[in-house]
Amino acid sequence: MKRWRVGILGATGTVGQRFIQLLEGHPWFAVTAVAASDRSEGKRYGDAAAWKLPTPLPARVADLTLAPCRPPLDCDLVFSSLPGEMAGETEAAFAAAGYPVISNSSAHRMAPDVPLLVPEINPDHAQLIAAQQRQRDWARGFLVTNPNCTTLALALPLAALDRAFGVEAAMISTMQAISGAGYPGVASLDILDNVIPYIAGEESKVETEPRKILGRLVGETVELSPLRLSAHCHRVAVTDGHLCAASVKLRQAATVADVCAALESFRGPAEALSLPSAPRRPIVLRREPDRPQPRLDRDLEQGMASVVGRVREDPLLDVKMTILGHNTVRGAAGAALLNAEFLAATGRFT
Amino acid sequence: MKRWRVGILGATGTVGQRFIQLLEGHPWFAVTAVAASDRSEGKRYGDAAAWKLPTPLPARVADLTLAPCRPPLDCDLVFSSLPGEMAGETEAAFAAAGYPVISNSSAHRMAPDVPLLVPEINPDHAQLIAAQQRQRDWARGFLVTNPNCTTLALALPLAALDRAFGVEAAMISTMQAISGAGYPGVASLDILDNVIPYIAGEESKVETEPRKILGRLVGETVELSPLRLSAHCHRVAVTDGHLCAASVKLRQAATVADVCAALESFRGPAEALSLPSAPRRPIVLRREPDRPQPRLDRDLEQGMASVVGRVREDPLLDVKMTILGHNTVRGAAGAALLNAEFLAATGRFT
Amino acid sequence: MKRWRVGILGATGTVGQRFIQLLEGHPWFAVTAVAASDRSEGKRYGDAAAWKLPTPLPARVADLTLAPCRPPLDCDLVFSSLPGEMAGETEAAFAAAGYPVISNSSAHRMAPDVPLLVPEINPDHAQLIAAQQRQRDWARGFLVTNPNCTTLALALPLAALDRAFGVEAAMISTMQAISGAGYPGVASLDILDNVIPYIAGEESKVETEPRKILGRLVGETVELSPLRLSAHCHRVAVTDGHLCAASVKLRQAATVADVCAALESFRGPAEALSLPSAPRRPIVLRREPDRPQPRLDRDLEQGMASVVGRVREDPLLDVKMTILGHNTVRGAAGAALLNAEFLAATGRFT
Amino acid sequence: MKRWRVGILGATGTVGQRFIQLLEGHPWFAVTAVAASDRSEGKRYGDAAAWKLPTPLPARVADLTLAPCRPPLDCDLVFSSLPGEMAGETEAAFAAAGYPVISNSSAHRMAPDVPLLVPEINPDHAQLIAAQQRQRDWARGFLVTNPNCTTLALALPLAALDRAFGVEAAMISTMQAISGAGYPGVASLDILDNVIPYIAGEESKVETEPRKILGRLVGETVELSPLRLSAHCHRVAVTDGHLCAASVKLRQAATVADVCAALESFRGPAEALSLPSAPRRPIVLRREPDRPQPRLDRDLEQGMASVVGRVREDPLLDVKMTILGHNTVRGAAGAALLNAEFLAATGRFT
Repeated sequence: MKRWRVGILGATGTVGQRFIQLLEGHPWFAVTAVAASDRSEGKRYGDAAAWKLPTPLPARVADLTLAPCRPPLDCDLVFSSLPGEMAGETEAAFAAAGYPVISNSSAHRMAPDVPLLVPEINPDHAQLIAAQQRQRDWARGFLVTNPNCTTLALALPLAALDRAFGVEAAMISTMQAISGAGYPGVASLDILDNVIPYIAGEESKVETEPRKILGRLVGETVELSPLRLSAHCHRVAVTDGHLCAASVKLRQAATVADVCAALESFRGPAEALSLPSAPRRPIVLRREPDRPQPRLDRDLEQGMASVVGRVREDPLLDVKMTILGHNTVRGAAGAALLNAEFLAATGRFT
Repeated sequence: MKRWRVGILGATGTVGQRFIQLLEGHPWFAVTAVAASDRSEGKRYGDAAAWKLPTPLPARVADLTLAPCRPPLDCDLVFSSLPGEMAGETEAAFAAAGYPVISNSSAHRMAPDVPLLVPEINPDHAQLIAAQQRQRDWARGFLVTNPNCTTLALALPLAALDRAFGVEAAMISTMQAISGAGYPGVASLDILDNVIPYIAGEESKVETEPRKILGRLVGETVELSPLRLSAHCHRVAVTDGHLCAASVKLRQAATVADVCAALESFRGPAEALSLPSAPRRPIVLRREPDRPQPRLDRDLEQGMASVVGRVREDPLLDVKMTILGHNTVRGAAGAALLNAEFLAATGRFT
Repeated sequence: MKRWRVGILGATGTVGQRFIQLLEGHPWFAVTAVAASDRSEGKRYGDAAAWKLPTPLPARVADLTLAPCRPPLDCDLVFSSLPGEMAGETEAAFAAAGYPVISNSSAHRMAPDVPLLVPEINPDHAQLIAAQQRQRDWARGFLVTNPNCTTLALALPLAALDRAFGVEAAMISTMQAISGAGYPGVASLDILDNVIPYIAGEESKVETEPRKILGRLVGETVELSPLRLSAHCHRVAVTDGHLCAASVKLRQAATVADVCAALESFRGPAEALSLPSAPRRPIVLRREPDRPQPRLDRDLEQGMASVVGRVREDPLLDVKMTILGHNTVRGAAGAALLNAEFLAATGRFT
Repeated sequence: MKRWRVGILGATGTVGQRFIQLLEGHPWFAVTAVAASDRSEGKRYGDAAAWKLPTPLPARVADLTLAPCRPPLDCDLVFSSLPGEMAGETEAAFAAAGYPVISNSSAHRMAPDVPLLVPEINPDHAQLIAAQQRQRDWARGFLVTNPNCTTLALALPLAALDRAFGVEAAMISTMQAISGAGYPGVASLDILDNVIPYIAGEESKVETEPRKILGRLVGETVELSPLRLSAHCHRVAVTDGHLCAASVKLRQAATVADVCAALESFRGPAEALSLPSAPRRPIVLRREPDRPQPRLDRDLEQGMASVVGRVREDPLLDVKMTILGHNTVRGAAGAALLNAEFLAATGRFT
């Protein structure tokens, strides 16, 4: 297989660092370019980035020079973890300049011609790329996005239940890790011995994005799922791992055992399963009374699975459960990487 | 007013310590007896108790000698914070021996002839005492209970909404403080950089107790409220203060402004308002986007209020909000103390 | 007694908020002016400040309008908690304009003509004011400083030991609270499940300031104490309260009992003892094997004492102990306030 | 190489779990027996142990049946992480019954005929085994111990400095992780927003054990090093990783650069270097101003190194630095495992 040369936009940030960590030793991709805000342009990556991961910064990347976030960039495709406000124009500029842009940013997620892709759930949404390129008059470049960190953790079990029984509504309450806010992000005075019951913009993403992910591709557009969602989002004193309490209303009756079976047997298509970063089990079901827990379960399947536990009847809706996802792995850099692997494996990079 | 002599059952525990703290300098009550497990019988309280509150242990209480948890005890009434499993028999024995028992334990809460009393909400439930004494053939003694720590935080706003619009259903997700599990309680390895999505017995209490609190006194029994509840309970790394995300379905349409007005104007009866430990505002409404927060808001109204914030429309039910209560003050010792004050003020101690 | 009108420089910061909290209801001082960075000039204090204390922001202060940090200001004297880099010029400008400046900033602490004042230890250092005014040609205005947060916690027990036995050297290792870094200050990703073994500039302050505090006033200068100090400073996941491990070499032999007696009997001069904010015991000695602890002991004496425990022999030097001080009360705003009270009581404000 | 069958005493505890984790897939050792307290005898390991590590419990070990802690046990040698009070007799009984006992417990560490072994430092101390077997009349069995968790982290850099310059004295202040206290161990109410300045027995271990480790083998006894130590031990809110501030007095003058060079070049003997669990660098030197930090550096060299940083001059002694060790890896199970590998490689298991 061809080895693709990869650039990272927003390379010094929390998610940018995860990209670098996950791409180290990757069989298909190699980081050849790093870009960040203009003020670090020209600096050595190892000097400019405050590396905050417990695995060492790869020496080869440390020696790369930071480029500004505009084309051209010395690579075949780019991963983007730019902040929402600057992602919109920058990513479009790279796509227009011929680069496939695999983005973790929110800017283009809900655009009708941009796939909000989760290979295990909606691999067919990748077909939007053709329409996108045609409508926007782009040749080789295009935009593909992955969902918000919380949304992805939820999307896998919601998809499993939707496929098996139909999901009519879901009530979500999240307890989200501080790494989700980047660095410096959450002030320690705000979170030590505390919970913050608010994350700007988060509830609306969680209430919206799953409807596109679970939507049906009709011709060249995605018909949003009629699923209704309500979210309460909270920040808690956890380093990594978003935990979600979910109560779900199904379209079709199902016992707790049925629900567990649907979750545990959920698999994506063959193409998704064999990707280098794909989890063997996209959903890991735990049967202990007190799991999943962020510290103990976030790294299952290398952080690429949704871990579900405490499946039980819900007195108001139908079934309730606890869901955990690693927010900076599967919820961010890992999601984009899996998307890139899927696009590579299905011949979207030419 | 007469000054009542008070005994504390379970005096060395977390809630027992709060009783002692809150009763220090109380205008009506003075601690004259402390009782705990048999193995500390005969010890000086100051030597036997691992005092864990930041205010000093009152010297006079430190010098009391621990009695065993059985009558007689040198006092006019007892506060109980015994663990559930031993509370049942012990509290009944004290009541049978002529002591009013003001209990924070769960053992008798749902017994049909025992008030689950919140003075601002259901002061009339105190009328169950007469039937209780008659049925159980008790003369001076009786049992009165207060709700579970989480339930109490929820009960005040649910009562306000129920009174104004009727509440049909509520979906609750809690983030509960470690002090709720007593001492030593939650192991630090279980909660640091973590959330535990399980608290034994808690969800069923939260789904049940509010129905009795909001129930209607019909003759000598309480008719449970038809309100339906679903709870997800979590333990988080917070010392004090239970935070709850609540989505509520009302029986009658109401705008967010209506809901805020109903919460803010909620008051108990005159007798409740003037009690020494009564909060001036039983419900404190915060209008900032990111409040209430445990560390910043748990001590409002000396920890005796429910603090509510983020009132907004709910896409699934009708309205959603965040609710905070101080779990060892209003959620435990403070609730019992307010009940005792109410009973004293209404002539129940003779 | 006259009531002094007080302005606060740096009023929106962590220490500025403590000033406002501690001055609420003060018998001698009333906040009449608040000043902060130019970009908040003209805003209502309650709108501009992110109030982070668990007691409510006093309504009267909330309604004050923020002035820029330059004279004139509508007050008789100013408290300053400006960051070091801007404190130097700004404070001097206020003093030159006739305002007594009671500063918590580091800028002028080591200036030979500026008192580094701790009323219980070196009240005579206030005599530097006369020389300062003469040399700098200032009429009514002057500068008085208090030590760094860690230094103050250490200075009280070091002074007690120095007075009783002479202190030759001290080895210090600190575990400092996050509130010491202000807001937003320490990033939560840096401190959760972590310790940071570095605080910029802190070790040199701790190794230097005590020598001036314990220095001897000779004529119009302070002769630094020959005491030698070595400090290791660490940031830990504690909201308030700096804990210090101290090993001390004495000039004169002393048993552990002697040392405890010297600590416990330490008092400042009569003028210091009777000030409104003075701790009854400047040093609180704990005899339990595992105290002091930040969460349990920081609020003793309203946060105005140094709490000392675990006094024991040191195999290398002479005696070792654990010392705790509340870093934003006695270690910052409270220290300045006590200095102001001392200056008021001794007729320095005219 | 022969594959040794290994039993674990205290297999359900925190260190026992680390043994199982580290031995999974080990090239020389396989776990064939697990033993714990009598009350779990006969239970399946997977049912009896509350597995608290983020990597999954190996299925083969989960299916082992727990034996009581007395010989015989189905294995060639045993690892012990028994609590001190029961380790003394139990370990001796296993050694007497012919089992090499590689112990992490403190019971026998200071016994004159028991090696307190660190392969990089004192491999020759293994020669005590012969005398031990002769004196105690044991045939195949023997006892070998590793140091206390904190001691080991310190011992590597102290040995490096002692070898290069001689170490006369060291002042140590520790900030220790909660995992060091086992499970349930430290109560969360004691450590959240807090530091505990006391760990029972710890300071005396840290002040004593390094003297044996750095001691000189003379004939069949170890002459304790004349090094003098003083320790302040604290528990902080960190999951894994003990951080130590160390000030060191050298026998021979050395610059900071000399000290860094001695630390960085420190290696054990060839036999130690090539062991499967040996760190490539026993001491990792960090040159950033704010490292090492527990969360970022504890896993360097798979948790088998001491990480040293902030090397600088000490105003009282000669040099000061910050030292970090992973307390349950190199500080406990990993130390014992490395000892076992060293003993296997040098033919001590027959």
